Amino acid sequence: MQRSAADTTMMDGDETLEPRINGVDAAALRAAVDDVRARPARGRYRFRAVNRWLDGAHTRTTVNGFIAADAEQRKRTRPFVLESDLPAVSAEGDRGLDPLEYLLVALGACLTRTLVWHASIVGVHLDAVEVRVEGDIDLAGCLGDQDRAGTGYRQIRATVLVDADAPDAALDDLLATATRLSPVLNTVRAGTCIEVRRVPAKSPARSP
Amino acid sequence: MQRSAADTTMMDGDETLEPRINGVDAAALRAAVDDVRARPARGRYRFRAVNRWLDGAHTRTTVNGFIAADAEQRKRTRPFVLESDLPAVSAEGDRGLDPLEYLLVALGACLTRTLVWHASIVGVHLDAVEVRVEGDIDLAGCLGDQDRAGTGYRQIRATVLVDADAPDAALDDLLATATRLSPVLNTVRAGTCIEVRRVPAKSPARSP
Repeated sequence: MQRSAADTTMMDGDETLEPRINGVDAAALRAAVDDVRARPARGRYRFRAVNRWLDGAHTRTTVNGFIAADAEQRKRTRPFVLESDLPAVSAEGDRGLDPLEYLLVALGACLTRTLVWHASIVGVHLDAVEVRVEGDIDLAGCLGDQDRAGTGYRQIRATVLVDADAPDAALDDLLATATRLSPVLNTVRAGTCIEVRRVPAKSPARSP
Repeated sequence: MQRSAADTTMMDGDETLEPRINGVDAAALRAAVDDVRARPARGRYRFRAVNRWLDGAHTRTTVNGFIAADAEQRKRTRPFVLESDLPAVSAEGDRGLDPLEYLLVALGACLTRTLVWHASIVGVHLDAVEVRVEGDIDLAGCLGDQDRAGTGYRQIRATVLVDADAPDAALDDLLATATRLSPVLNTVRAGTCIEVRRVPAKSPARSP
Protein backbone atom coordinates (compact mmCIF):
# COMPACT_ATOMS: atom_id res chain seq x y z
CA MET A 1 0.00 0.00 0.00
CA GLN A 2 3.00 2.25 0.56
CA ARG A 3 4.16 2.49 -3.04
CA SER A 4 2.46 4.48 -5.79
CA ALA A 5 0.37 2.85 -8.49
CA ALA A 6 2.85 4.11 -11.10
CA ASP A 7 5.74 2.15 -9.55
CA THR A 8 5.19 -1.18 -11.24
CA THR A 9 8.76 -2.40 -11.74
CA MET A 10 8.65 -6.17 -12.28
CA MET A 11 10.95 -8.66 -10.66
CA ASP A 12 13.87 -9.77 -12.79
CA GLY A 13 15.75 -13.07 -12.93
CA ASP A 14 18.04 -12.15 -10.06
CA GLU A 15 15.23 -11.34 -7.67
CA THR A 16 13.82 -14.86 -7.94
CA LEU A 17 17.12 -16.04 -6.43
CA GLU A 18 16.64 -14.08 -3.21
CA PRO A 19 16.61 -16.56 -0.36
CA ARG A 20 13.84 -14.72 1.48
CA ILE A 21 10.90 -12.94 -0.10
CA ASN A 22 7.54 -11.99 1.46
CA GLY A 23 8.82 -13.51 4.69
CA VAL A 24 9.03 -16.87 2.94
CA ASP A 25 12.27 -18.83 2.60
CA ALA A 26 11.78 -19.23 -1.15
CA ALA A 27 14.88 -21.39 -1.58
CA ALA A 28 13.62 -23.81 1.10
CA LEU A 29 10.14 -23.77 -0.46
CA ARG A 30 11.54 -24.61 -3.91
CA ALA A 31 13.61 -27.38 -2.32
CA ALA A 32 10.42 -28.71 -0.67
CA VAL A 33 8.67 -28.73 -4.05
CA ASP A 34 11.54 -30.73 -5.60
CA ASP A 35 11.55 -33.01 -2.58
CA VAL A 36 7.85 -33.97 -2.80
CA ARG A 37 8.21 -34.48 -6.55
CA ALA A 38 11.04 -36.96 -5.99
CA ARG A 39 9.59 -38.62 -2.89
CA PRO A 40 5.77 -38.62 -2.93
CA ALA A 41 5.51 -39.79 0.70
CA ARG A 42 7.00 -36.44 1.82
CA GLY A 43 3.84 -34.65 0.72
CA ARG A 44 1.44 -36.82 2.70
CA TYR A 45 -0.17 -35.10 5.68
CA ARG A 46 -2.91 -36.07 8.12
CA PHE A 47 -4.54 -33.29 10.13
CA ARG A 48 -6.82 -33.80 13.13
CA ALA A 49 -9.28 -31.98 15.35
CA VAL A 50 -11.23 -33.16 18.40
CA ASN A 51 -14.53 -31.42 19.13
CA ARG A 52 -16.34 -31.79 22.45
CA TRP A 53 -19.82 -30.63 23.29
CA LEU A 54 -20.03 -28.28 26.27
CA ASP A 55 -23.66 -27.14 26.58
CA GLY A 56 -26.37 -26.10 24.16
CA ALA A 57 -24.74 -24.97 20.92
CA HIS A 58 -21.42 -24.34 22.70
CA THR A 59 -18.56 -26.66 21.70
CA ARG A 60 -14.78 -26.66 22.04
CA THR A 61 -12.27 -28.03 19.53
CA THR A 62 -8.70 -28.99 20.36
CA VAL A 63 -6.05 -29.19 17.62
CA ASN A 64 -2.58 -30.45 18.35
CA GLY A 65 -0.56 -33.21 16.68
CA PHE A 66 -0.55 -34.07 12.99
CA ILE A 67 1.25 -36.35 10.61
CA ALA A 68 3.66 -34.88 8.05
CA ALA A 69 5.67 -36.94 5.57
CA ASP A 70 4.25 -40.10 7.18
CA ALA A 71 5.69 -39.18 10.60
CA GLU A 72 3.87 -37.98 13.73
CA GLN A 73 4.83 -34.37 14.51
CA ARG A 74 5.14 -33.36 18.14
CA LYS A 75 6.81 -29.97 17.89
CA ARG A 76 3.77 -27.99 19.01
CA THR A 77 4.31 -26.87 22.55
CA ARG A 78 0.58 -26.49 23.31
CA PRO A 79 -2.74 -27.38 21.70
CA PHE A 80 -4.88 -24.76 19.96
CA VAL A 81 -8.32 -24.49 21.56
CA LEU A 82 -11.26 -23.05 19.59
CA GLU A 83 -14.80 -22.40 20.73
CA SER A 84 -17.91 -22.52 18.58
CA ASP A 85 -21.37 -21.31 19.43
CA LEU A 86 -24.51 -19.79 17.99
CA PRO A 87 -23.79 -16.28 16.81
CA ALA A 88 -25.43 -13.61 18.93
CA VAL A 89 -28.85 -13.32 17.36
CA SER A 90 -30.23 -13.33 20.89
CA ALA A 91 -28.59 -12.50 24.22
CA GLU A 92 -27.36 -16.08 24.44
CA GLY A 93 -24.42 -17.58 22.62
CA ASP A 94 -21.51 -15.91 20.88
CA ARG A 95 -18.80 -17.63 22.88
CA GLY A 96 -17.15 -18.56 19.58
CA LEU A 97 -17.64 -18.62 15.82
CA ASP A 98 -20.46 -20.39 14.11
CA PRO A 99 -19.10 -23.61 12.51
CA LEU A 100 -20.10 -22.18 9.13
CA GLU A 101 -17.80 -19.22 9.82
CA TYR A 102 -14.86 -21.54 10.55
CA LEU A 103 -15.28 -22.92 7.04
CA LEU A 104 -14.84 -19.40 5.61
CA VAL A 105 -11.80 -18.83 7.85
CA ALA A 106 -10.26 -22.00 6.38
CA LEU A 107 -10.95 -20.84 2.81
CA GLY A 108 -9.66 -17.28 3.20
CA ALA A 109 -6.49 -18.27 5.05
CA CYS A 110 -5.71 -21.02 2.55
CA LEU A 111 -6.19 -18.82 -0.50
CA THR A 112 -3.93 -16.12 0.99
CA ARG A 113 -1.20 -18.58 1.97
CA THR A 114 -1.20 -20.35 -1.38
CA LEU A 115 -0.99 -17.01 -3.18
CA VAL A 116 1.91 -15.82 -0.98
CA TRP A 117 3.81 -19.09 -1.51
CA HIS A 118 3.52 -18.86 -5.27
CA ALA A 119 4.37 -15.17 -5.36
CA SER A 120 7.52 -16.06 -3.45
CA ILE A 121 8.40 -18.92 -5.79
CA VAL A 122 8.04 -16.77 -8.91
CA GLY A 123 9.64 -13.70 -7.29
CA VAL A 124 6.76 -11.25 -6.89
CA HIS A 125 7.21 -8.94 -3.90
CA LEU A 126 3.87 -8.42 -2.15
CA ASP A 127 2.83 -5.35 -0.20
CA ALA A 128 -0.56 -6.57 0.94
CA VAL A 129 -3.02 -9.42 0.39
CA GLU A 130 -6.61 -9.39 1.61
CA VAL A 131 -9.22 -12.07 0.94
CA ARG A 132 -12.85 -11.32 1.80
CA VAL A 133 -15.00 -14.45 1.84
CA GLU A 134 -18.77 -14.62 2.10
CA GLY A 135 -21.18 -17.51 1.81
CA ASP A 136 -24.94 -17.74 1.37
CA ILE A 137 -26.90 -20.51 3.05
CA ASP A 138 -30.46 -21.48 3.81
CA LEU A 139 -30.47 -22.88 7.35
CA ALA A 140 -34.01 -24.29 7.10
CA GLY A 141 -32.58 -27.61 5.91
CA CYS A 142 -30.30 -28.05 8.90
CA LEU A 143 -33.17 -27.26 11.27
CA GLY A 144 -35.02 -30.23 9.85
CA ASP A 145 -37.20 -28.84 7.07
CA GLN A 146 -37.46 -31.99 4.95
CA ASP A 147 -38.00 -30.09 1.71
CA ARG A 148 -34.76 -28.23 2.17
CA ALA A 149 -32.74 -30.93 4.00
CA GLY A 150 -29.14 -31.66 3.21
CA THR A 151 -28.17 -28.24 2.04
CA GLY A 152 -24.84 -26.57 2.64
CA TYR A 153 -23.58 -23.22 1.37
CA ARG A 154 -25.39 -22.38 -1.85
CA GLN A 155 -22.55 -20.16 -3.05
CA ILE A 156 -19.27 -18.85 -1.64
CA ARG A 157 -17.54 -15.76 -3.02
CA ALA A 158 -13.95 -14.67 -2.43
CA THR A 159 -12.90 -11.13 -3.30
CA VAL A 160 -9.12 -10.82 -3.41
CA LEU A 161 -7.01 -7.69 -3.18
CA VAL A 162 -3.32 -8.03 -4.05
CA ASP A 163 -1.09 -4.99 -3.69
CA ALA A 164 2.29 -5.56 -5.36
CA ASP A 165 4.68 -3.91 -7.79
CA ALA A 166 3.63 -6.12 -10.66
CA PRO A 167 1.37 -5.63 -13.69
CA ASP A 168 -2.27 -6.61 -13.46
CA ALA A 169 -1.68 -9.59 -15.74
CA ALA A 170 0.94 -10.99 -13.34
CA LEU A 171 -1.43 -10.56 -10.39
CA ASP A 172 -4.24 -12.24 -12.33
CA ASP A 173 -1.90 -15.17 -13.04
CA LEU A 174 -0.94 -15.36 -9.39
CA LEU A 175 -4.56 -15.51 -8.26
CA ALA A 176 -5.41 -18.08 -10.92
CA THR A 177 -2.56 -20.29 -9.68
CA ALA A 178 -3.57 -19.85 -6.02
CA THR A 179 -7.18 -20.69 -6.88
CA ARG A 180 -6.11 -23.78 -8.82
CA LEU A 181 -3.79 -25.07 -6.07
CA SER A 182 -5.37 -24.01 -2.74
CA PRO A 183 -6.11 -27.31 -0.97
CA VAL A 184 -9.02 -26.02 1.13
CA LEU A 185 -10.64 -24.39 -1.90
CA ASN A 186 -10.26 -27.60 -3.88
CA THR A 187 -11.67 -29.68 -1.03
CA VAL A 188 -14.80 -27.54 -0.82
CA ARG A 189 -15.24 -26.87 -4.52
CA ALA A 190 -14.87 -30.44 -5.76
CA GLY A 191 -16.50 -32.20 -2.83
CA THR A 192 -14.74 -34.73 -0.65
CA CYS A 193 -15.48 -38.17 0.71
CA ILE A 194 -16.47 -37.92 4.39
CA GLU A 195 -16.90 -41.12 6.37
CA VAL A 196 -18.87 -40.83 9.61
CA ARG A 197 -19.07 -43.66 12.15
CA ARG A 198 -20.17 -43.99 15.76
CA VAL A 199 -18.08 -45.68 18.42
CA PRO A 200 -19.55 -46.89 21.73
CA ALA A 201 -19.27 -44.44 24.59
CA LYS A 202 -18.36 -47.28 26.94
CA SER A 203 -15.70 -48.82 24.71
CA PRO A 204 -12.81 -50.67 26.41
CA ALA A 205 -10.40 -48.00 25.15
CA ARG A 206 -12.17 -45.44 27.34
CA SER A 207 -12.26 -47.52 30.53
CA PRO A 208 -9.94 -46.49 33.33
CA MET B 1 -20.13 -40.72 31.22
CA GLN B 2 -21.46 -40.69 34.78
CA ARG B 3 -24.27 -43.23 34.32
CA SER B 4 -23.84 -46.98 33.92
CA ALA B 5 -24.27 -48.72 30.58
CA ALA B 6 -27.26 -50.62 31.98
CA ASP B 7 -29.18 -47.39 32.66
CA THR B 8 -30.78 -46.95 29.26
CA THR B 9 -34.20 -45.51 30.13
CA MET B 10 -35.61 -43.83 27.03
CA MET B 11 -37.27 -40.46 26.97
CA ASP B 12 -41.06 -40.54 26.99
CA GLY B 13 -43.59 -38.19 25.44
CA ASP B 14 -43.57 -35.80 28.39
CA GLU B 15 -39.84 -35.32 28.28
CA THR B 16 -40.03 -33.96 24.74
CA LEU B 17 -42.16 -31.14 26.15
CA GLU B 18 -39.42 -29.92 28.48
CA PRO B 19 -38.62 -26.35 27.55
CA ARG B 20 -34.88 -26.81 28.09
CA ILE B 21 -32.88 -29.94 27.30
CA ASN B 22 -29.13 -30.33 26.71
CA GLY B 23 -28.85 -26.60 27.37
CA VAL B 24 -31.01 -25.98 24.31
CA ASP B 25 -34.32 -24.15 24.45
CA ALA B 26 -36.12 -26.93 22.58
CA ALA B 27 -39.43 -25.08 22.45
CA ALA B 28 -37.74 -22.05 20.84
CA LEU B 29 -35.86 -24.34 18.46
CA ARG B 30 -39.10 -26.07 17.41
CA ALA B 31 -40.70 -22.65 16.93
CA ALA B 32 -37.71 -21.63 14.76
CA VAL B 33 -38.20 -24.74 12.64
CA ASP B 34 -41.88 -23.91 12.13
CA ASP B 35 -40.97 -20.31 11.42
CA VAL B 36 -38.49 -21.09 8.60
CA ARG B 37 -40.97 -23.55 7.13
CA ALA B 38 -43.64 -20.85 6.95
CA ARG B 39 -41.35 -17.98 5.96
CA PRO B 40 -38.39 -19.19 3.89
CA ALA B 41 -36.58 -15.83 4.09
CA ARG B 42 -36.08 -16.42 7.84
CA GLY B 43 -33.65 -19.23 7.11
CA ARG B 44 -31.38 -17.24 4.83
CA TYR B 45 -27.96 -16.42 6.28
CA ARG B 46 -24.81 -14.85 4.90
CA PHE B 47 -21.59 -15.40 6.83
CA ARG B 48 -18.33 -13.52 6.21
CA ALA B 49 -14.65 -13.61 7.06
CA VAL B 50 -11.83 -11.21 6.13
CA ASN B 51 -8.33 -12.65 5.94
CA ARG B 52 -5.21 -10.46 5.80
CA TRP B 53 -1.68 -11.54 5.09
CA LEU B 54 0.84 -10.65 7.81
CA ASP B 55 4.18 -12.19 6.82
CA GLY B 56 5.31 -15.48 5.31
CA ALA B 57 2.60 -18.08 5.95
CA HIS B 58 1.20 -16.03 8.84
CA THR B 59 -2.30 -14.61 8.26
CA ARG B 60 -5.06 -13.17 10.43
CA THR B 61 -8.82 -13.55 9.89
CA THR B 62 -11.45 -11.26 11.37
CA VAL B 63 -15.05 -12.42 11.72
CA ASN B 64 -17.77 -10.09 12.90
CA GLY B 65 -21.11 -9.18 11.32
CA PHE B 66 -23.37 -11.54 9.39
CA ILE B 67 -26.79 -11.51 7.79
CA ALA B 68 -29.60 -13.56 9.36
CA ALA B 69 -33.16 -13.65 8.02
CA ASP B 70 -32.16 -11.08 5.38
CA ALA B 71 -31.14 -8.53 8.04
CA GLU B 72 -27.64 -7.38 9.04
CA GLN B 73 -26.85 -8.54 12.60
CA ARG B 74 -24.78 -6.24 14.79
CA LYS B 75 -25.19 -7.83 18.21
CA ARG B 76 -21.59 -9.04 18.46
CA THR B 77 -19.76 -6.77 20.84
CA ARG B 78 -16.31 -7.55 19.36
CA PRO B 79 -14.88 -9.32 16.30
CA PHE B 80 -13.34 -12.78 16.56
CA VAL B 81 -9.70 -12.78 15.44
CA LEU B 82 -8.04 -16.00 14.27
CA GLU B 83 -4.44 -16.59 13.23
CA SER B 84 -3.24 -19.12 10.72
CA ASP B 85 0.30 -20.24 10.06
CA LEU B 86 2.44 -23.16 9.02
CA PRO B 87 2.32 -25.83 11.69
CA ALA B 88 5.58 -26.22 13.57
CA VAL B 89 7.48 -28.63 11.37
CA SER B 90 10.48 -26.35 11.82
CA ALA B 91 11.29 -23.79 14.49
CA GLU B 92 9.31 -21.19 12.52
CA GLY B 93 5.58 -20.84 12.34
CA ASP B 94 2.88 -22.24 14.63
CA ARG B 95 1.32 -18.89 15.47
CA GLY B 96 -2.04 -20.37 14.51
CA LEU B 97 -3.72 -23.36 12.91
CA ASP B 98 -3.01 -24.55 9.42
CA PRO B 99 -5.94 -23.53 7.16
CA LEU B 100 -6.55 -27.24 6.54
CA GLU B 101 -7.05 -27.66 10.28
CA TYR B 102 -9.66 -24.89 10.35
CA LEU B 103 -11.68 -26.93 7.86
CA LEU B 104 -11.71 -29.88 10.30
CA VAL B 105 -12.70 -27.54 13.17
CA ALA B 106 -15.68 -26.41 11.08
CA LEU B 107 -16.71 -30.01 10.37
CA GLY B 108 -16.40 -31.33 13.92
CA ALA B 109 -18.18 -28.36 15.53
CA CYS B 110 -21.00 -28.49 12.97
CA LEU B 111 -21.59 -32.21 13.35
CA THR B 112 -21.70 -31.89 17.15
CA ARG B 113 -24.06 -28.92 17.09
CA THR B 114 -26.44 -30.47 14.59
CA LEU B 115 -26.56 -33.66 16.65
CA VAL B 116 -27.24 -31.77 19.88
CA TRP B 117 -30.03 -29.75 18.24
CA HIS B 118 -31.78 -32.84 16.96
CA ALA B 119 -31.36 -34.75 20.21
CA SER B 120 -33.06 -31.80 21.91
CA ILE B 121 -35.89 -31.70 19.37
CA VAL B 122 -36.64 -35.42 19.76
CA GLY B 123 -36.06 -35.40 23.53
CA VAL B 124 -32.83 -37.39 23.98
CA HIS B 125 -30.84 -36.27 27.04
CA LEU B 126 -27.12 -36.24 26.21
CA ASP B 127 -24.30 -36.80 28.67
CA ALA B 128 -21.40 -36.29 26.27
CA VAL B 129 -20.68 -35.85 22.58
CA GLU B 130 -17.21 -36.04 21.07
CA VAL B 131 -16.37 -35.84 17.37
CA ARG B 132 -12.84 -36.72 16.25
CA VAL B 133 -12.10 -35.60 12.71
CA GLU B 134 -9.06 -36.48 10.62
CA GLY B 135 -8.24 -35.82 7.00
CA ASP B 136 -5.62 -37.19 4.63
CA ILE B 137 -4.04 -34.95 2.03
CA ASP B 138 -1.14 -34.92 -0.40
CA LEU B 139 0.36 -31.43 -0.26
CA ALA B 140 2.54 -31.92 -3.35
CA GLY B 141 -0.24 -30.52 -5.52
CA CYS B 142 -0.54 -27.28 -3.59
CA LEU B 143 3.23 -26.79 -3.71
CA GLY B 144 2.98 -26.77 -7.49
CA ASP B 145 3.62 -30.37 -8.57
CA GLN B 146 1.70 -30.27 -11.87
CA ASP B 147 0.94 -34.00 -11.83
CA ARG B 148 -0.78 -33.68 -8.47
CA ALA B 149 -2.17 -30.15 -8.80
CA GLY B 150 -5.64 -29.20 -7.65
CA THR B 151 -5.98 -31.75 -4.94
CA GLY B 152 -7.73 -31.19 -1.63
CA TYR B 153 -8.38 -33.66 1.17
CA ARG B 154 -8.46 -37.16 -0.27
CA GLN B 155 -10.63 -38.46 2.55
CA ILE B 156 -12.01 -37.10 5.82
CA ARG B 157 -13.16 -39.37 8.65
CA ALA B 158 -15.30 -38.42 11.64
CA THR B 159 -15.50 -40.75 14.63
CA VAL B 160 -18.40 -39.85 16.87
CA LEU B 161 -18.97 -40.78 20.50
CA VAL B 162 -22.43 -40.13 21.94
CA ASP B 163 -23.02 -40.87 25.61
CA ALA B 164 -26.75 -40.80 26.43
CA ASP B 165 -29.43 -42.84 28.15
CA ALA B 166 -30.84 -44.13 24.90
CA PRO B 167 -30.56 -47.41 23.00
CA ASP B 168 -27.91 -47.82 20.34
CA ALA B 169 -30.52 -47.70 17.60
CA ALA B 170 -31.71 -44.26 18.77
CA LEU B 171 -28.12 -42.98 18.84
CA ASP B 172 -27.50 -44.37 15.35
CA ASP B 173 -30.62 -42.55 14.13
CA LEU B 174 -29.46 -39.34 15.78
CA LEU B 175 -26.05 -39.52 14.09
CA ALA B 176 -27.64 -40.37 10.74
CA THR B 177 -29.87 -37.29 11.04
CA ALA B 178 -26.96 -35.05 12.08
CA THR B 179 -24.87 -36.34 9.18
CA ARG B 180 -27.70 -35.76 6.73
CA LEU B 181 -28.43 -32.22 7.95
CA SER B 182 -25.06 -30.75 9.04
CA PRO B 183 -24.55 -27.77 6.72
CA VAL B 184 -20.73 -27.77 6.86
CA LEU B 185 -20.62 -31.51 6.18
CA ASN B 186 -22.98 -31.09 3.24
CA THR B 187 -20.98 -28.17 1.86
CA VAL B 188 -17.75 -30.18 1.88
CA ARG B 189 -19.21 -33.52 0.87
CA ALA B 190 -21.28 -32.35 -2.09
CA GLY B 191 -18.97 -29.63 -3.31
CA THR B 192 -19.93 -25.98 -3.53
CA CYS B 193 -19.66 -23.24 -6.10
CA ILE B 194 -16.82 -20.87 -5.17
CA GLU B 195 -16.40 -17.69 -7.18
CA VAL B 196 -13.01 -15.96 -6.92
CA ARG B 197 -12.33 -12.50 -8.31
CA ARG B 198 -9.63 -9.89 -7.92
CA VAL B 199 -10.33 -6.25 -7.16
CA PRO B 200 -7.77 -3.49 -7.75
CA ALA B 201 -5.67 -2.59 -4.70
CA LYS B 202 -5.99 1.11 -5.58
CA SER B 203 -9.76 1.11 -6.13
CA PRO B 204 -11.67 4.33 -5.40
CA ALA B 205 -13.40 2.59 -2.48
CA ARG B 206 -10.06 2.31 -0.71
CA SER B 207 -8.95 5.90 -1.24
CA PRO B 208 -8.95 8.18 1.80
